[in-house]
Amino acid sequence: MAVYTDITDDELAAFLGDYDLGQAVAFKGIAEGVENSNFLLETTTGRFILTVYERRAKPEDLPYFLDLLTWLADHGYPSAKPIADRSGATLKTIRGKPAALVEFLPGLSARRPTVAHCREAGEGLAWLHLAGEGYPARRANDLGQPHWASLFSKHRKDAEGLKPGLAATIDKDLAELALAWPRGLPSGVIHADYFPDNVFFKPDGKFAAAIDFYFACDDAYAYDIAVTLNAWCFESDGSFNITAARALIAGYERRRPLSPAERDAIPILARGAAMRFFLTRLADWGSTPAGALVRPKDPLEYERKLAVHREGLSLFGAGA
Amino acid sequence: MAVYTDITDDELAAFLGDYDLGQAVAFKGIAEGVENSNFLLETTTGRFILTVYERRAKPEDLPYFLDLLTWLADHGYPSAKPIADRSGATLKTIRGKPAALVEFLPGLSARRPTVAHCREAGEGLAWLHLAGEGYPARRANDLGQPHWASLFSKHRKDAEGLKPGLAATIDKDLAELALAWPRGLPSGVIHADYFPDNVFFKPDGKFAAAIDFYFACDDAYAYDIAVTLNAWCFESDGSFNITAARALIAGYERRRPLSPAERDAIPILARGAAMRFFLTRLADWGSTPAGALVRPKDPLEYERKLAVHREGLSLFGAGA
Repeated sequence: MAVYTDITDDELAAFLGDYDLGQAVAFKGIAEGVENSNFLLETTTGRFILTVYERRAKPEDLPYFLDLLTWLADHGYPSAKPIADRSGATLKTIRGKPAALVEFLPGLSARRPTVAHCREAGEGLAWLHLAGEGYPARRANDLGQPHWASLFSKHRKDAEGLKPGLAATIDKDLAELALAWPRGLPSGVIHADYFPDNVFFKPDGKFAAAIDFYFACDDAYAYDIAVTLNAWCFESDGSFNITAARALIAGYERRRPLSPAERDAIPILARGAAMRFFLTRLADWGSTPAGALVRPKDPLEYERKLAVHREGLSLFGAGA
Repeated sequence: MAVYTDITDDELAAFLGDYDLGQAVAFKGIAEGVENSNFLLETTTGRFILTVYERRAKPEDLPYFLDLLTWLADHGYPSAKPIADRSGATLKTIRGKPAALVEFLPGLSARRPTVAHCREAGEGLAWLHLAGEGYPARRANDLGQPHWASLFSKHRKDAEGLKPGLAATIDKDLAELALAWPRGLPSGVIHADYFPDNVFFKPDGKFAAAIDFYFACDDAYAYDIAVTLNAWCFESDGSFNITAARALIAGYERRRPLSPAERDAIPILARGAAMRFFLTRLADWGSTPAGALVRPKDPLEYERKLAVHREGLSLFGAGA
C-alpha cells in the first residue's frame, strides 16, 4: 500500500493537457504497489492507471519497462499498455517525478491462490515468456545470483539481529548457490516479481492479466518459474504445497514445455529465488525508518522458504 | 491513506452472495479515509465502494450514518447511497468487522481549493443542511464544545511536548470558549468533517457530491460552516483567506440564508472548530505507535488556526 505523491488538480489538468483523453472525472490513490504511487484516473473517455515512479526503479530503466509493456500489448499479451501523449511519449513527468499513464485492466488478484489459480498463473507466465521473445532492449538482472553475496555483506548484522546464527547459515547458502547455480538455461524477458498481487483473474477464475513489470529483466525463464513457485505455493503455515506447484508447472507447460535441464534446475533456482527475496526484505527491514508509512515485509518469511528449499524440492520424482 | 483489512476472494464472494450485484471483476484498496478501509469494487453490474469500519466509528452509531446516507439520497442530495442486500440490510459484516456497500460517486476532490471551489462547497453544505431536515434519528456531537475540556485534560503533557507553554494557552482558550459558546442557533444534521477530501466536484468545477459522513451528528448549522471555513480557507502559509471565506458563505447563502445570530456567531464557532481539530489531532499524535501505517496529522496546524481565530475574524465588517 503506498501513495507517496500528492497530485494537485492543476498538476493533473496540466498533465492531461498533453493527451487526447478528455477531462478528469475521478482520481483516487490506490493501495497497490509498494515501490510507486498509483492512481486510478477516470476521464471523460476512459479509465487509466497513473503511476508515479518513486523509489528503486532507476529513471534510466523506465524506458525499458514502458517499451516492454508496449511490446507485450502489441504482441497480444494482457498487460497494461502505456498511453502515448500527442507527441508519442509514454514516459512523462508530474510534480518533477517520472510518471506514466497506462490503460486500466479489470481483474481480481487472488489473495489466497488455489491450485486452480496456480495452474492459470503458470500458463500466464509461459505466455509472457513467449510474448517477450524478440523484444530488442536488454536489462541485466541486478538482483540476480551474482549480486547476492555483496548485498548480504551490507546486512549481516541485520540477519544476526533477526535470528542469532543466521549470518553463518546464509554465508553457507550463498557459497552453495554460487557453486551449483545453473548456466545456459533458456533465457529472455522475465517478470521477476510475478506475485499473486501482480496477476489478475477473470470472474470465472481464468488468467486475465499481469501487472507491475518494474523488476522485469533478462534471465532464465525457469528462474521466473522458481520465483513464482515461492510466491504462490507456500501455505500460511510455511509448508510447501507440492500439488499447487505441479499445477503451476503443468499450466506453464500448456504454453511452453520445459526442457529436462530446466526441470532439473528448478529446485536450486527455487532456493536461489528464496534467497533473493530474503535479501531484499532484509535490506528493506534494516533501512526502513521508524514512522515510515510502509511496513517492511518480514524477511523471516523468506528465510523459512529458504530452509524448505535447503532440503531440496522433488517436483518431478517417480510416481509424482 | 489507509487500508487496514485484507479481504480474501472467498470473503468477497461470500459477501457479494447476499446481493444481486453480479460477480466481482475488479477490487482495489483505495487511499481514502483515515478511519476506515475503503475498496473500489467493480462487479458485472456496476461500481461500488466497500467500507470496512475500523476505528473510532462506534458500531452502535453505524445505523445512524447509513440511514442518514439513505435519507439524503432519497431526498435528492448527492451522497453515496448505501446498497441494501436481498434482506434489506445495509449494515453488514465482513471478516468479523462491520461493513457497508455504497454506490460509487464520480467526482474529483479539490486538493488546492480555489475561491470558486469554496463558493461551490458552501452551496453544497447548505444543500446538505436542508436535505437533512426531518431526518428522524439523533446523534449528539460527542466531539462538541462540552467535551473539549475533558479531552484536553488527558493530553496536556502532549501539548507541552509540542510547544512549551501551550497547555496554559489552551486552558485559557477553553475557558473563554465555554463562556462565549453560542446557544440556541438553528441546528440539525451537520457533516462535521466537511474537508476538501470529502467533497467532489464535476469537471466544470461545480459541486458534485459529499462523502464520508462518519462524524455526522446534531449540532448548529453555523458550526458546520465554521469547521468548513477552517478546512478550506487557510493558505498553506497559515494565513486566512477572507475572500475564500466570504465566497464560501455566499455560496452557502444561495441555498440557506444565515440569520444575524448565525453570522455573529461564526467567529467564535470558528475558534471552537479549530480547537476541536487541534484536540483530536493532539490525541492521535500522542497515541499513534511508532511504526504505524498512518502518519498522524500535525496538531500544530490547527494550533496556528486557533491563534488566528483568537484575534477574532471579521467576515462581515463594514465595507467588507
